[in-house]
Amino acid sequence: MGALHRIGWFSIFCFLLEVSFILIFTGFMQYDDFYNGSKWNETHHPTYKKPNLHYYYAMFQDVHVMILVGFGFLMTFLKKYAFSSVSINLVLTSVTIQYAIIIMGFFFTVKDGIITLSMLDLLNGDLASGTVLISMGAVLGKTTPTQLVCMILIEVVVFAGNLYFGMEVLGVFDIGGSIFIHTFGAYFGLGVAKTVSRNLNVIDHPKEGSSYNSDLFAMVGTVFLWVFWPSFNGILASEEGQGRAVINTYLGLVSATVTACVVSGWQNKKNKWTMAHVQNATLAGGVAVGAVADLMIFPWGALVIGSFAGIVSCLGYIYITPLLANRIGIHDTCGVHNLHGMPGIISALVSVVASFFASETYYGLSLYTQFPRMAPAANTTALRTLQGLHPEIEAGEGRSASMQALMQALGTLVTLIVAFLSGLVTGEERERVAGWSELS
Amino acid sequence: MGALHRIGWFSIFCFLLEVSFILIFTGFMQYDDFYNGSKWNETHHPTYKKPNLHYYYAMFQDVHVMILVGFGFLMTFLKKYAFSSVSINLVLTSVTIQYAIIIMGFFFTVKDGIITLSMLDLLNGDLASGTVLISMGAVLGKTTPTQLVCMILIEVVVFAGNLYFGMEVLGVFDIGGSIFIHTFGAYFGLGVAKTVSRNLNVIDHPKEGSSYNSDLFAMVGTVFLWVFWPSFNGILASEEGQGRAVINTYLGLVSATVTACVVSGWQNKKNKWTMAHVQNATLAGGVAVGAVADLMIFPWGALVIGSFAGIVSCLGYIYITPLLANRIGIHDTCGVHNLHGMPGIISALVSVVASFFASETYYGLSLYTQFPRMAPAANTTALRTLQGLHPEIEAGEGRSASMQALMQALGTLVTLIVAFLSGLVTGEERERVAGWSELS
Amino acid sequence: MGALHRIGWFSIFCFLLEVSFILIFTGFMQYDDFYNGSKWNETHHPTYKKPNLHYYYAMFQDVHVMILVGFGFLMTFLKKYAFSSVSINLVLTSVTIQYAIIIMGFFFTVKDGIITLSMLDLLNGDLASGTVLISMGAVLGKTTPTQLVCMILIEVVVFAGNLYFGMEVLGVFDIGGSIFIHTFGAYFGLGVAKTVSRNLNVIDHPKEGSSYNSDLFAMVGTVFLWVFWPSFNGILASEEGQGRAVINTYLGLVSATVTACVVSGWQNKKNKWTMAHVQNATLAGGVAVGAVADLMIFPWGALVIGSFAGIVSCLGYIYITPLLANRIGIHDTCGVHNLHGMPGIISALVSVVASFFASETYYGLSLYTQFPRMAPAANTTALRTLQGLHPEIEAGEGRSASMQALMQALGTLVTLIVAFLSGLVTGEERERVAGWSELS
Repeated sequence: MGALHRIGWFSIFCFLLEVSFILIFTGFMQYDDFYNGSKWNETHHPTYKKPNLHYYYAMFQDVHVMILVGFGFLMTFLKKYAFSSVSINLVLTSVTIQYAIIIMGFFFTVKDGIITLSMLDLLNGDLASGTVLISMGAVLGKTTPTQLVCMILIEVVVFAGNLYFGMEVLGVFDIGGSIFIHTFGAYFGLGVAKTVSRNLNVIDHPKEGSSYNSDLFAMVGTVFLWVFWPSFNGILASEEGQGRAVINTYLGLVSATVTACVVSGWQNKKNKWTMAHVQNATLAGGVAVGAVADLMIFPWGALVIGSFAGIVSCLGYIYITPLLANRIGIHDTCGVHNLHGMPGIISALVSVVASFFASETYYGLSLYTQFPRMAPAANTTALRTLQGLHPEIEAGEGRSASMQALMQALGTLVTLIVAFLSGLVTGEERERVAGWSELS
Repeated sequence: MGALHRIGWFSIFCFLLEVSFILIFTGFMQYDDFYNGSKWNETHHPTYKKPNLHYYYAMFQDVHVMILVGFGFLMTFLKKYAFSSVSINLVLTSVTIQYAIIIMGFFFTVKDGIITLSMLDLLNGDLASGTVLISMGAVLGKTTPTQLVCMILIEVVVFAGNLYFGMEVLGVFDIGGSIFIHTFGAYFGLGVAKTVSRNLNVIDHPKEGSSYNSDLFAMVGTVFLWVFWPSFNGILASEEGQGRAVINTYLGLVSATVTACVVSGWQNKKNKWTMAHVQNATLAGGVAVGAVADLMIFPWGALVIGSFAGIVSCLGYIYITPLLANRIGIHDTCGVHNLHGMPGIISALVSVVASFFASETYYGLSLYTQFPRMAPAANTTALRTLQGLHPEIEAGEGRSASMQALMQALGTLVTLIVAFLSGLVTGEERERVAGWSELS
Repeated sequence: MGALHRIGWFSIFCFLLEVSFILIFTGFMQYDDFYNGSKWNETHHPTYKKPNLHYYYAMFQDVHVMILVGFGFLMTFLKKYAFSSVSINLVLTSVTIQYAIIIMGFFFTVKDGIITLSMLDLLNGDLASGTVLISMGAVLGKTTPTQLVCMILIEVVVFAGNLYFGMEVLGVFDIGGSIFIHTFGAYFGLGVAKTVSRNLNVIDHPKEGSSYNSDLFAMVGTVFLWVFWPSFNGILASEEGQGRAVINTYLGLVSATVTACVVSGWQNKKNKWTMAHVQNATLAGGVAVGAVADLMIFPWGALVIGSFAGIVSCLGYIYITPLLANRIGIHDTCGVHNLHGMPGIISALVSVVASFFASETYYGLSLYTQFPRMAPAANTTALRTLQGLHPEIEAGEGRSASMQALMQALGTLVTLIVAFLSGLVTGEERERVAGWSELS
């Protein structure tokens, strides 16, 4: 149980990892051409399309705060693990960021054996860390740091592979990462927790409990996540989509906060809010809006999605978390199933509906930039006509709205299965690793 | 007294409110044209004036942090209500934001029955929440959440009405909201507190007290308010006014911090600072500079205003808060009169002086964009000459500087009276509601 | 010892300082021409080069958070001084900012007796405060506030003088301030601590210790410093240098975090991390990358520098801090030598190496904008040729790479000597002041 045990092995392990990262970076990583001084003479021509650091930077820093401050302090609620949680969060994020930049680079941006780094690669590091931290929330206090690093090494690869398959092969959209980050992270973590919980009597463990102060520290995490979520959902959106993403996420959060607290107060015998609900379920709106944040879901739609997610998330803490623990044997320490799992699935389902109804009525010709696969195929007259009006429209595959809806559903299903199964396997693996480290 | 009692009714009440918000949003709210996909074909022409999300976004997020993190944690200083305060702050802000977007929309931006949403409407939601949270500070720990929601429903309408009258009818300027947000919020809250305190023996209540840890949490709030205040005062200013607003607010805060701690140390027998002074009076400079933040008050002027406000605010905690409680029967839990009330009035008075001396000597031709009512009236030769030089200057009403000064004074007076009286009435109303909820 | 003693004198002292600041601001400070309304008619022409507030603003606010929230809460780890530390941090920063704007203005920007203020002058105030707060970390809990203000009055002048000599005379570069801010601040503080520690039996003082909660509050500081450090190192860089600065700092921090915790876990008998290491040594990467953040150190280089700094910083806490205290008589309360001193020197040494290898191979023609003294001298054919290609290149002095390397080394040496000696003298001075205040 002790989260800081056996750091001796952990130290050696992390040291070897860091050495490996340095070697891989030496072999494969280079600055983006614009930042690469040796290409300065070519890239500093007026016609060169510069990366716009400042376009992303403020939102990137918001996301960065969410990962380090938000997730870090959200996990301080366990009074015995408060300091460990925020420290381990910092160290594991540091490992994940380096590892994820490498893995994501090889999946998505490698060219002639070189991965060039820009703002968006740092963002990828943060997003992969977010996924890992969600999974970590399910097993918090039940695993050693060494086990967590093993988990990271497996999870990031599966995460990147699933993302590649979903986005590049199936053409699934998911601007706020509700499918590929939240749902994936939650079910992967639940898979791991299933295996780990088996051998541990973790239910009602005396060390699992919060104190008044640790709950206040957790609220620091909650509030920063809440405030900066619009940046998380909006950072990668197109110019007009970003406006919608910010408005929709903002509205999703306020409505989820109200309904989560309504449900929390309603079910409590003394009519008091349960702290865990306030800390977590209030954020469900940000997850539930995620996959469709930049779409025409309308302001009322954002409120409906948020309200529903707040209710579901809070009911999850009340009914489903104990059920998972007692019936299925999955002890979910932070309740990531309620904050990330179910709201992620809600978001995926909404994305199916939103795809099904996508048409020029709602999007004008931006239909073909918002859903690039729905643009006409290359060398068609339809494409040439569109490009005559708006040259930024690129060739797609003439996908229909219902086909896009089907792909959203398929991508979600694949994510669920891949995440949970690979989580289960990772848990087994980690069991063995733990047994091994026990010997040493 | 218990801030979390009777949440049963509160839950039902909030649920009905959320349903109402969804219905009203369905009927009246739409994205801004640029973000509205169905208008994409029209708005994506090179000549269309796009809303600049990124121009506001970083400052908007700073304000968002101030409302949720700043005000939220500033109220954690009561050791028995620390967690309740930050939770209730989160939930009530969520209610207020939705409600304020509706009310402000109907007062200011509705067109053909439709309210279009952009970045600035989300900001309006935050600003109205700020006003409500200031009022809440005066009655913290003395009211039930249901009573607070009733207060919100009344206060936001009066706030919007007063703002409309002051800005649109009287032509009062107030870039940092010192008159319409801080002064209004404080005196409305004091009015409510006057009625509520009458029936409660709240003075020296054993639960009213801070602990070392709760005081540290409050400092999280203080420091984030302090750091981001330049964004609060500057976000709505013109291009060159924004530079002045940031510089003036920054200077106002540093000088108020010094003088507040000078006074706090001076009056204490052991020469120690009082925690409440450090937490609150250090911020008075941000309020006091507010109304004139974007004007030519000069760097030294900002220091003088800040220094004076720090002294007044700190003296307020020492002498006026006990006086209000014992003589007038107004128990002001957080001392909002010292942090928002008096510094708000100082700012209003400075705005009278700054208007009186406004001339082309200090502003050049920007006099007519900074004080739009002072621009010559439509169809005058004077206006045509000015527009020949700077087409952005719009027709005003040829108002004189002394008339502008008079209007600043009048707007402040109206705000004071409207705020306090409507607060008193709201308190009565809430008394009845409370009595009624007692029955149920 | 009591950090809040004798505030009576402190109050009078600060009040007189504030009055002096107001008088000096009245005599010498004016808004930047673009923000100065009386110059509006001249500056609002399309050809006028406007200051770009928004280019700096988001990064400036990040730095502002680092100074007030980051440093403020990092110092809360002492359980008896937690509140005092964050309050004194707020007040002393307020004093330093005003004082530094004046001193830096007279050293760098004064023109015809007038100092004009823009965004960058506020940033200068923050950077000088950072330097002072680093020094303060070395003497925390051992000095009265009055003594600290005396220290500020001396330190800021020496800081500005050393910066002027290093940057303007020697032509040393130091984009992230590792030499002129971190190294200077640390060794100045150690000099002061040397004198102060002499007369105090501070080792193992019962009040010097942390509690679980105070350590958690310190982590709030750590995490915000960690997250926003890329802004600190990047804000003043050129367009393409800024991209490198953000990437390098980000990578330096993640690798330092891993190695610092590796070392911390390794040396602990129970294999647990030491809290002080997690709070401080994880940040060493940000300092160590600082001086070369915007240079072509390559992503792997940033990882190597960060890894090395994390190890050195953590070993410093374990071996060097006790050594300094017991052998040399320097009691370094926060361990600034480990977080700022040694990583600062590492950064300086890297800057020597980076200069030595600087050539057009790595930088193209940006060699002459990145290292302005290496540009050809005025009126040479070489310069005319370069300016024909890139008119932004300015005349330098044709300095060679090895000469630049020498200057980096010289600037660091001068900074070390000036900082430590002036710190020693300041400590003496403060001893006398303290003795004097004891009498009164």
